[in-house]
Amino acid sequence: MTSDIKQYMEQVGQRARAASRAMARADSATRNRALSLIADAIVRDSALLRAANQQDMDSARAAGLAPAMLDRLALSDKAIDTMVEGLRQIVALADPIGEISGLKFRPSGIQVGQMRVPLGVIGIIYESRPNVTVDAAGLCIKSGNATILRGGSEAIHCNRALAKLVKEGLLGAGLPADAVQVVDTTDRAAVGALITMPQYVDVIVPRGGKGLIARLMEEATVPMIKHLDGICHVYIDAQADLQKAVEIGFNAKCHRYGTCNTMETLLVARAVAPTVLPLLAERYAGQQVELRADAEAQAILAGYPQLAAATEEDWSTEYLAPILAVKVVADMDEAMDHINRYSSKHTEAIVTENYSDAMRFLREVDSASVMVNASTRFADGFEYGLGAEIGISNDKLHARGPVGLEGLTSLKYVVFGHGEVRS
Amino acid sequence: MTSDIKQYMEQVGQRARAASRAMARADSATRNRALSLIADAIVRDSALLRAANQQDMDSARAAGLAPAMLDRLALSDKAIDTMVEGLRQIVALADPIGEISGLKFRPSGIQVGQMRVPLGVIGIIYESRPNVTVDAAGLCIKSGNATILRGGSEAIHCNRALAKLVKEGLLGAGLPADAVQVVDTTDRAAVGALITMPQYVDVIVPRGGKGLIARLMEEATVPMIKHLDGICHVYIDAQADLQKAVEIGFNAKCHRYGTCNTMETLLVARAVAPTVLPLLAERYAGQQVELRADAEAQAILAGYPQLAAATEEDWSTEYLAPILAVKVVADMDEAMDHINRYSSKHTEAIVTENYSDAMRFLREVDSASVMVNASTRFADGFEYGLGAEIGISNDKLHARGPVGLEGLTSLKYVVFGHGEVRS
Repeated sequence: MTSDIKQYMEQVGQRARAASRAMARADSATRNRALSLIADAIVRDSALLRAANQQDMDSARAAGLAPAMLDRLALSDKAIDTMVEGLRQIVALADPIGEISGLKFRPSGIQVGQMRVPLGVIGIIYESRPNVTVDAAGLCIKSGNATILRGGSEAIHCNRALAKLVKEGLLGAGLPADAVQVVDTTDRAAVGALITMPQYVDVIVPRGGKGLIARLMEEATVPMIKHLDGICHVYIDAQADLQKAVEIGFNAKCHRYGTCNTMETLLVARAVAPTVLPLLAERYAGQQVELRADAEAQAILAGYPQLAAATEEDWSTEYLAPILAVKVVADMDEAMDHINRYSSKHTEAIVTENYSDAMRFLREVDSASVMVNASTRFADGFEYGLGAEIGISNDKLHARGPVGLEGLTSLKYVVFGHGEVRS
Repeated sequence: MTSDIKQYMEQVGQRARAASRAMARADSATRNRALSLIADAIVRDSALLRAANQQDMDSARAAGLAPAMLDRLALSDKAIDTMVEGLRQIVALADPIGEISGLKFRPSGIQVGQMRVPLGVIGIIYESRPNVTVDAAGLCIKSGNATILRGGSEAIHCNRALAKLVKEGLLGAGLPADAVQVVDTTDRAAVGALITMPQYVDVIVPRGGKGLIARLMEEATVPMIKHLDGICHVYIDAQADLQKAVEIGFNAKCHRYGTCNTMETLLVARAVAPTVLPLLAERYAGQQVELRADAEAQAILAGYPQLAAATEEDWSTEYLAPILAVKVVADMDEAMDHINRYSSKHTEAIVTENYSDAMRFLREVDSASVMVNASTRFADGFEYGLGAEIGISNDKLHARGPVGLEGLTSLKYVVFGHGEVRS
């Protein structure tokens, strides 16, 4: 059975590689036409899609899936509208492919520049949400890549129905149907095969929880655009504007608890801790946020309803919950030392009115996003103006931070010559 | 013993990581001062360096090293001058670090851009040439990285002497001596440790033969900027200018045989093969180049002194020698099919006067460098104007093609806010 799956995935890979050549050749209008046709087909067949989703929901309920999972699996009318709107927005984005930059004449006479080109074949591995099927297909089509989508087994009926519409759109625009393939098996061996076919797959984008990604990292031989953790910090400087500090400290924790750009540790300069911590505590108390504080912060926060002593483990925990670690630091240097030690290098923010501190923090904190006087919650492809987001990368090589269409491309050198040879 | 080496490398890694923070903070003038001081120290101690190299040469000769290896190990006065000149050129290059690009206001009020920052710690693994020690150290210092250098055991005395001068320059500029560490053991286990310490090393740049790199690829858990093969093609189109075709076809093969950007397979359009192949054969014959041709080319080349039938293996062989595979193709599409199948995606060139063919070739050939009417030998950091080259990458992610200072950096997002929170 497993060897059957391997063979099946090998064929999927070969077809994707072949389709990637046609995608790289296709012009902007053709790729956009495919995206529009897919959007139209989804609108036309929304009742069929809802029925397919209902099948998945029924099986999932029968299998006793947790309510949170069921919620993510559901494809409401609104979710369908959002998918369609997302495709139309991708159509409207500038085509990243083919742009030549930096074209310069060299002393030898050749003219050298860099052309933006698709990566080739992108593998996407994700969990229940069926909308990812369309979002990811859309971004890959726009960026001239072929893609292999491996969704959660619980969403297989809906994903199959979506795949059919995507193929219809591709064929309608004269593109190969294999440019987007949904892996049509729920066997887990398919994932193992997908992440170990570097000959067919150029990059894997896993979208899912830490457990999924950690498992993939152990086995993958294909490079991944991924992030594991979002242990984000806000540092309130001695020269912070207190109102900004309170608003940012509150928003970064309480706007949403389950997102990777949510603050998990608050660092406060000693000089302002006695002033700012009680103001923040008032806000946190209204949301029943549990505070895990170092001794100094504990003393200041005495009487807070949900207060505990922070343990060493707290500094490196991504709570994804209404829990916040709090620490008083001497100054920005101590704050940056703490961040360098415990941060997952996702997003950190400083609140300060001091110019030199702001500039030093931006320069010296080694995270994918570094902010001055803004909530960490802004670390997001849409908020950054990428137009779309395929994921957020914690890696330093290739794409770092929110990854949009450009992250699915690469630059090759192009040389315009006139018969030049090297002497 | 091996556990001692592991412990030693662990310490080297920790020191490099700590030093990388100071390097990331250091301003341009400080990093340039270190480079100038190193250059001065090399000039001052050139006699000592030559003596250390003599020790290495004596041992290598006693150990029966091949003449080609001895040649690469030798540190002549000229090689010392070149090293010093290289450092002075690196000083003159623009500082890649700290540049902020694309800073734009978003509807939310935040201003978002990307700052170029050092990768952190670069591990360089190389074979005999001692000049790599200084070239690589220079590029890493300039780009604000810490580096761990692992040179060939046969060059250990010279590398130690160079490391001393590098440290002197770093300290003289007020930078940590640990910013450049030469691994001070010839034990091979040190390499194994270096490539499996992702917590301390951000990227490995292996410089050496295919054998070295293939070995490293099997074991490495740290990402690598590498290339394995240079199976480069020149395609002479039906509408080629014949004089350009002959000059480029000759230069791409015969300018140097042992380099990765040397042509290994020549593809010729059927329409011009009977004209251009005999002209090229005349030039190749003068250099005793052996030709391995498909049946059609063989017929045209009949009578050439060193002619053999090409086997399937020839199409995927990097000869690094005066040997050339030759194939007649129907047209550019067949040429591109052949290239897509056999190329190592390093460098390919088309010779043509046809505008549409040139544009299609540039767009559709998926290699790190794609050229029109120029010799593949131009695929080189200096020729491309990068100012310096740490290596050439065959990968698509991160750096592709010749890698200069930028390849040793990454972009992080910076956000300038005014108290914004997400709503």
